[in-house]
Amino acid sequence: MASTQLEFSSRADHRAWLAAQAALPLGFRVGTSRFEFVPREAPKPARMTLTLIALDEPTTDFAAVFTRNAFPGAPIVVGRARLSSPELGAIIVNNKISNVCAPGGVDAAERICAATAQLLGRKSTEVLPSSTGVIGWTLPVDAILAALPATHAALTATSILPAAEGIVTTDLYPKIRCAEVSGGRIVGIAKGAGMIEPNLATMLVYILTDVAVPRAELRAMLTRVVQPSFNAISIDSDTSTSDTVALVSSGRIPCADLAAFERALRTVCCDLAEDVVRNGEGVRHVIRVHVKNAVTSSLAFALGKAVINAPLFKCAVAGNDANVGRLVQAIGKYVGAHAPDTDLQRLRMWLGGIEIFAGGVFQLDRTKEAALAAHLQHAELYTSAPPQNGVFAPAVDFPPHERCVEIVIDLGSGSAEATVFGGDLTHEYVSENADYRS
Amino acid sequence: MASTQLEFSSRADHRAWLAAQAALPLGFRVGTSRFEFVPREAPKPARMTLTLIALDEPTTDFAAVFTRNAFPGAPIVVGRARLSSPELGAIIVNNKISNVCAPGGVDAAERICAATAQLLGRKSTEVLPSSTGVIGWTLPVDAILAALPATHAALTATSILPAAEGIVTTDLYPKIRCAEVSGGRIVGIAKGAGMIEPNLATMLVYILTDVAVPRAELRAMLTRVVQPSFNAISIDSDTSTSDTVALVSSGRIPCADLAAFERALRTVCCDLAEDVVRNGEGVRHVIRVHVKNAVTSSLAFALGKAVINAPLFKCAVAGNDANVGRLVQAIGKYVGAHAPDTDLQRLRMWLGGIEIFAGGVFQLDRTKEAALAAHLQHAELYTSAPPQNGVFAPAVDFPPHERCVEIVIDLGSGSAEATVFGGDLTHEYVSENADYRS
Repeated sequence: MASTQLEFSSRADHRAWLAAQAALPLGFRVGTSRFEFVPREAPKPARMTLTLIALDEPTTDFAAVFTRNAFPGAPIVVGRARLSSPELGAIIVNNKISNVCAPGGVDAAERICAATAQLLGRKSTEVLPSSTGVIGWTLPVDAILAALPATHAALTATSILPAAEGIVTTDLYPKIRCAEVSGGRIVGIAKGAGMIEPNLATMLVYILTDVAVPRAELRAMLTRVVQPSFNAISIDSDTSTSDTVALVSSGRIPCADLAAFERALRTVCCDLAEDVVRNGEGVRHVIRVHVKNAVTSSLAFALGKAVINAPLFKCAVAGNDANVGRLVQAIGKYVGAHAPDTDLQRLRMWLGGIEIFAGGVFQLDRTKEAALAAHLQHAELYTSAPPQNGVFAPAVDFPPHERCVEIVIDLGSGSAEATVFGGDLTHEYVSENADYRS
Repeated sequence: MASTQLEFSSRADHRAWLAAQAALPLGFRVGTSRFEFVPREAPKPARMTLTLIALDEPTTDFAAVFTRNAFPGAPIVVGRARLSSPELGAIIVNNKISNVCAPGGVDAAERICAATAQLLGRKSTEVLPSSTGVIGWTLPVDAILAALPATHAALTATSILPAAEGIVTTDLYPKIRCAEVSGGRIVGIAKGAGMIEPNLATMLVYILTDVAVPRAELRAMLTRVVQPSFNAISIDSDTSTSDTVALVSSGRIPCADLAAFERALRTVCCDLAEDVVRNGEGVRHVIRVHVKNAVTSSLAFALGKAVINAPLFKCAVAGNDANVGRLVQAIGKYVGAHAPDTDLQRLRMWLGGIEIFAGGVFQLDRTKEAALAAHLQHAELYTSAPPQNGVFAPAVDFPPHERCVEIVIDLGSGSAEATVFGGDLTHEYVSENADYRS
C-alpha cells in the first residue's frame, strides 16, 4: 500500500524525512500552543495542545467524513453542520479531552469556534472544531480560550510539522504524507490510534491542498478514497466516537487533471492509513491481508477484517508464531456466521508467499513452519523489551521499516478483492490500556 | 447465573467441592489413560490423554450441538452423522490435537470409533468422537489405538472427575456441575477456553443423566438451554472449530417432571458456561452484562456481546480502571453500525450498581470514580504476578470466588433482555497465546 518501502535507522533519520514532506501548500498557515489545566473530573493537572490550521482566504472547497459511532463527540455534531457552511476558514483542534457525551459539549465547541473566528476575522460557522482524548470529561473551555491568542500568534506558512505534532496523544511519532500533482501539493497529517490516559483512541486526519477542486468533486473523491484507506484498517476493532478526516483546498492552483488528483489523494490517504496501523497501540507487526477472487468486494473486505480482528491470530503474530490454524478459524467463523454458502474447498491461502492451505486441508511441513516463522520475524518492527515496573513500552519512537506480514486469501469463486491492514496483539497494547495509571 | 456464590480458599478446598459434585449418574462409567507421542508436524514429543465415557447399555436418548465454524473438525463431521444413529453407547475424547482440516481426518476419527466400539462390543456408529488441541496437525491414530485398551480397563462407575481432568488442555482446573432432579442426577463437565501449544481453544461439554427423557424432548431442551448458557459467553470472540455440547441419558430413572428437568439442565449449563469464562485464557475478571428493556432479545444479546468483546474496555477492566467511556464507545459502535434507529437518549447504565450514564450524558464525579474502581477490585479473581522470563502465568489454579463485574444497560425502549458473560484482556492472555513456545 505504501508507495515506497521506507526504512529509518533512528528518530533523527525519520524526523529529517518528515521535515522534507512537511512544506505547506499555498494558502495555509498552522500554529500550536501548549498549556496546563486541572480536569473537572480528575484531581491532578494535565497538559493540552491547541492546534490551529488557518486558510489565508476562506474556501468553498472542503470535505469531511466523520465517525459512524452512534455516540458522536460534540465536535462531530458541529462538524456535520459545518458541511453546509458556504465557506471554511480554519480548523481548531485540542487533544487530551475528546468532548464526548459531556454536559454542554456542543456549546463548548461552539464557544471555541467563535473565539477562533474572532481572532481570524471570520464567522464561527467557518471554523471546524476537533477534540481527542478522554471520553466523559468536560473541556476546559476557559483555559482553551485563554490559550487561543498564543496559538494564533504562532501561525506560520512554512511547515505542517507543528500541527502533526500538536494533534497527537500517545502516538510514538507524527505522521505526514504528501504528493505533488497538477503543479500543486497535497499534504496530509494523521493522529492515532493512540491513547491519552487509558482512554479511547481517536483518528484525526487533515489533508490540505492548494490544487483547486470544486466542493462537489472534492467530497465525492473523499468518500471514494476513505474506503480503501482509513476504512480498511483496524488496530483493535474499537470505533472511536471522534474519528474525522477533513480535506481542504485553498484553490490557489488550477487542477489540470481531476483523475490524477484523485490518484494522488488516494495514495496520500492509503499511506497515512498504513502509518496509523504501523504506529497503532503496541503494534509490533503490521498485517496486510489481501483477499481476492471473492464473489463480492464486501465479502472480501469482511473476511480480511475478520482475520485482522481475530485476537488469537494477532497474539500468535506477536509471538512470531505462524499459527495458521487461527487464520482458518477466523475465516471459518466469519463464513459460518455470515456467508455459509461459500465453497471453502476452493480456498487457497499464502503467508509470506508460502502456500499454507488448499483443497480443504493444510499444506504444512516442518520446513514450511520454519520459513513461516522467519517471515514473521522479518516483518517485526521491534522486539519487545522487558517490562519496567510491570509496564511494557515500545522500544522505538520511529518506524524502522514498512515490511508487513503478508497474507493472501484466494476464494476462487469470483473476481472481487480487498486489502486490509491490521496489527498484532501485544503486551505493549495491554500495558498501554490497562497498566498505565493517571 | 451461578446458582450459589461459591468461594474457595485453596486448590484442595476446590478439589473437595468438585469431588462432592462428581458422582456419576446410574448407567455410566468413565476411564482415562495418558501417553507420549511425536507429532508428524513437530520435532519434539507431546503427551495426550484419552478419555472414554461409556454407557452400560446403549441409549436412544442423546443430543448434541456443534460449532458453527465453517471449518468444522473431523469429529464434528462424524458427530453430526451420529445424531441419526439409533443408539449411542460411548464418547471417546482426545486432547492435544484437534483433527481439523488435516488430511484423512474423518477416516482417523472413524478408525478410533471402530476400535472403541470393538472393546465395548458395540457398533462404531454408536461412538461419538471428540478431539481438541492443535489445529492443522494430524492425529496419532496408531498411538491412540494402542492406548485404547488401557483406557477401557480404567472404566469406573464412581466419579466423573477423571473425565473432567482428562479432557482439559491448559485449563487451570477441572469443571463439574450437577443437579438432583426427579430422583436422579444431571452431571456435566466442561473443557475450555484453554490452549495447548499456542493454538485454538475448544469448548467441550458432556452432560450425563440417568433421568429418562426421550430423544426428541432431550434435543429440543438442549437447543433451548445452550442459548442462555454456552451461546452467551465469550472469552476472546474466537469461535472454535471443535465446540461440542453433548447430553446423554441412561434412562434409568423415570422423569416425573420434564419442566423441572429442563430447569435443572439449564442451571447446570449456565453454571458450566460461567465456569468456562471464569477459567478462560488469562481471565482475572468475569464481566456480567445484563441488557434490559430492549426492543428485541437479539439486540439485547448483540449489545451485551459488543461490550464483552470490546478490547479497550476489557483492558481497562484488567487494570481495575472504570473506563466507562469505552463502554459507551462499544455500545455506540454497535448501534451506529447495526441499529441506527435506536434512541440512545433513553439509555441508562450502571456499573457495580452505580449509575454512570443517563439522558445522553455521563453521570460521573470523583467520588463515583473511586467507588467504580473499588467494584472492579472486589471482582478481581487474582492480582497479576510479575512475569517470569517475560511470561505472565495465572497466580491461582482454582476459582477464588464467583463475583463479577456487574454491568446493567437499560435501553428503555422495549421489554426484551439478555445476560452475557465475558472476561477481561490481560497480560496472562497475551502470554498464553504469544509468549509460550513449544
